[in-house]
Amino acid sequence: MKITVVRDILEANDRIADLNRELFDRHHLFVINLMSSPGAGKTSLLERTIDGLKQDLRIGVIEGDIQSSRDAERIARKSVPVVQINTGGACHLDGNMIRETFHEFNFEEMDLLVVENVGNLVCPAEFKVGEDMKVMILSVAEGDDKPMKYPLMFRESKALLINKIDLLPYVDCSVERIREDSLRINPELRIFEVSCKNGNGLEEWCGWLKGRVKAGRPG
Amino acid sequence: MKITVVRDILEANDRIADLNRELFDRHHLFVINLMSSPGAGKTSLLERTIDGLKQDLRIGVIEGDIQSSRDAERIARKSVPVVQINTGGACHLDGNMIRETFHEFNFEEMDLLVVENVGNLVCPAEFKVGEDMKVMILSVAEGDDKPMKYPLMFRESKALLINKIDLLPYVDCSVERIREDSLRINPELRIFEVSCKNGNGLEEWCGWLKGRVKAGRPG
Repeated sequence: MKITVVRDILEANDRIADLNRELFDRHHLFVINLMSSPGAGKTSLLERTIDGLKQDLRIGVIEGDIQSSRDAERIARKSVPVVQINTGGACHLDGNMIRETFHEFNFEEMDLLVVENVGNLVCPAEFKVGEDMKVMILSVAEGDDKPMKYPLMFRESKALLINKIDLLPYVDCSVERIREDSLRINPELRIFEVSCKNGNGLEEWCGWLKGRVKAGRPG
Repeated sequence: MKITVVRDILEANDRIADLNRELFDRHHLFVINLMSSPGAGKTSLLERTIDGLKQDLRIGVIEGDIQSSRDAERIARKSVPVVQINTGGACHLDGNMIRETFHEFNFEEMDLLVVENVGNLVCPAEFKVGEDMKVMILSVAEGDDKPMKYPLMFRESKALLINKIDLLPYVDCSVERIREDSLRINPELRIFEVSCKNGNGLEEWCGWLKGRVKAGRPG
C-alpha cells in the first residue's frame, strides 16, 4: 500500500521534472542538482565554485532548506541571482518546488543553474528536478562506509566531491576505500578530492564543470 | 493531496508505535530512538555506551540502515543481542519495521533497547517507533547552523550529544552557538559534549542515561 503511494508520487514528479527539463533545454541552461548529508559543505563548495567560474559563466542558484534563508544570504553576497525554497517539513526538493521559482529568474541571462538540495543523503536522489546531472559531496568526517550504506546517491551522481580533505589527519577515513566502493557502485563516477577551506582540488573541479557546461552535456 | 497522504501514513504509524510502546512498558523496557545525519557517530557512540553500561544494564540494539549489515556486525562484537533492519529505500525506521524484529529478542532479559535509526537529520524525527525518548547526535564537523536549519529533530529530542569535539580546533563550529540555538528551539534539551575518539564526556552521558533507565522515565 505504502509502496504504491510512493511510486505514484515519484511518477508524478518525473513528469514535472521532464517539463522543467524541456524549458531548461529551450534556454540552453545547464542544471546541476547538488546533494549531500547536512554539513558536508554544499554551500561552501557553491561559494568557491561561483568564485572560480563567474568570469566564464553566468550562474544562478536555487537554495533548498527545510527552513531559514541563511544559505541564500550567503550566496547573494556573491552577486548572483538566488532564490530560497523553504520546504516546510519536506526532506528533499521536487520538480514542482523548482517550477515555482521560475518567474524569479531570467533564464536567457544564465548559463548554469545550481540547485542546492536539502541536506539528506537519501531522499533527494529519488526526486528529479529536471537537472542535467546530479553532483554529490561527501565529507571525510562522515567516514568511508557511506557508499556501501547509501548507494543510491552514488549510483545516480555524475560527480562525487570528497570534501574537507584538510581534516584527513584527524579522522578515521580512507579516501581509497571511498573511491573503490563508489566506483564499484558507479564505474562512470568522476571523483574529485577537495577542501573548501584551503582550496585544494577546486581548480580541477571548476575546470571539469566548465567543460561540461560549455559542451552542454553531463557525460 | 500529497500532504493528506503523508498525514495518513504518520497517523497509521503513530497507532503502531503506541502498540509497541505498550509492549515495551509491559516488559519494563526502556527504549531510545537514536538519530543523526550520516556519519555523525551513532554506532561509535553506541559501542562506547555499551562499554560504559554493560555492567549495570542489559542492553539490546536494533540497527537501521538502507542496506548493509556493517553496523550490526560492529555491535555484535560487544556481545549484546542485535538485529539489523535493512529498509531498502526508506530513509527512516517506522513502527512496523521495529515490530517485525520482536521475535528476535527476549525482552524479559533486557533493560534498555537502543534503536539506531537511518542516518538522516529530517525524516526519522517524524516517525515514532514506540520509544521512551529520542536522542540525537550532531558532529561538530557538520557546522553550527544545523539547529536553525533542521529544527524538528532538536525539538523532538530529550538529549543532544555534540560529538567529535576533538575536531574543534580544525573546523569552523561554535559549540556555544549550537547550545544557544538548540535551547531556543527546545529549552528542556539536555546537551552533552563528547568525543567517541578520546572518550571525553562519555562518563557524564552514560551516568545520565543510566539514571533515566533506572527511573523508567525520559524526563
